[in-house]
Amino acid sequence: MQNINEIEELIKLISKLPGLGPKSAKRIVLKLINNRDELVKPMANTLAQVYKNVIRCQSCGTLKSNSLGCNNCENSKEKYNKICVVEDIADQWSIENSNIYKGYFHILGGTISSAGQRKEDLLINSLVERVSRENIEEVILATSATVEGQTTAYYIEDSLKKTSTKVTKLAQGLPVGGEIESLDDGTLYSAFKNRTGIKTNSD
Amino acid sequence: MQNINEIEELIKLISKLPGLGPKSAKRIVLKLINNRDELVKPMANTLAQVYKNVIRCQSCGTLKSNSLGCNNCENSKEKYNKICVVEDIADQWSIENSNIYKGYFHILGGTISSAGQRKEDLLINSLVERVSRENIEEVILATSATVEGQTTAYYIEDSLKKTSTKVTKLAQGLPVGGEIESLDDGTLYSAFKNRTGIKTNSD
Repeated sequence: MQNINEIEELIKLISKLPGLGPKSAKRIVLKLINNRDELVKPMANTLAQVYKNVIRCQSCGTLKSNSLGCNNCENSKEKYNKICVVEDIADQWSIENSNIYKGYFHILGGTISSAGQRKEDLLINSLVERVSRENIEEVILATSATVEGQTTAYYIEDSLKKTSTKVTKLAQGLPVGGEIESLDDGTLYSAFKNRTGIKTNSD
Repeated sequence: MQNINEIEELIKLISKLPGLGPKSAKRIVLKLINNRDELVKPMANTLAQVYKNVIRCQSCGTLKSNSLGCNNCENSKEKYNKICVVEDIADQWSIENSNIYKGYFHILGGTISSAGQRKEDLLINSLVERVSRENIEEVILATSATVEGQTTAYYIEDSLKKTSTKVTKLAQGLPVGGEIESLDDGTLYSAFKNRTGIKTNSD
């Protein structure tokens, strides 16, 4: 538009974000331009701050602030005896939001067989170190129920054998709201295989 | 998430953009974090550049680069004798993209009766100046077909009377693809009122 390089560059960058194309990028740029002091300036500053300060923790894989240290593995106010192993940060955020789990997280940064991902890039060695160093009683493998995720889970289980910590993985079966007739064979198979006794008077 | 201030701040800012809520903002932030050098750094730089360099031209209302001057009213390679008056930058971009019109643009920055918009903030005086100063033969009023847009158009027409330039406004009538039975009364009324003779052998 109008051959202003900065604007064209900004539209190009915003179009690369997930869920946004050139048209929504233009709409966003218009909104930004009309709110220079409320949006453009703080966003430029915040992005620069994020670039400067936020890095991946080398030990547990979560994001940490350079100045404050890692909230997950260094600064945690409470001590836990559980580590939940997930593939990436989005998985951690989903589990945190659900408020189901209280404990440490460990983010691998991918799965073993995903394209271009070498086994050495995943933080598996540092997981073994963490488990031996800290007083961890249970490692929960929360990798995806895909072939890659399950392969990674088996590999981690194997790596953790020498630490003699309890290793668990998430249950497989019917999802809540799942109708039998519309489920795939794999899910039905694991739901049958993992069927449980019905407890009465449970609380 | 994880109480990292920079990340929370960024999510809050991105949620304010049109079409994005907290959930898509999180997805975008994850994408940004995973592409620090390809996205975060250039985007921070570009936004800072936009904040520093891109301003509204005081004369014609379009965006201009501080260093290069206004492409629309100062640096234009060709000379035109038409000015198209629109409400905001989005309107200009739509008309430019359609490739229908070749000429100068003049962006008012709003309409007369829109909330909180004072008549003095609209670039109407500078439009009159431009028309008298340059060799303009036609002013095309392309304000929206709303009450506010039409009020603004009448006011501009009145302001331009002393310059004795030809003032036109966009035609009102059936939109392309419009079915008679589904059109509103206002559109039907103006389509009847502005009906034209059928030309035969026209090219």
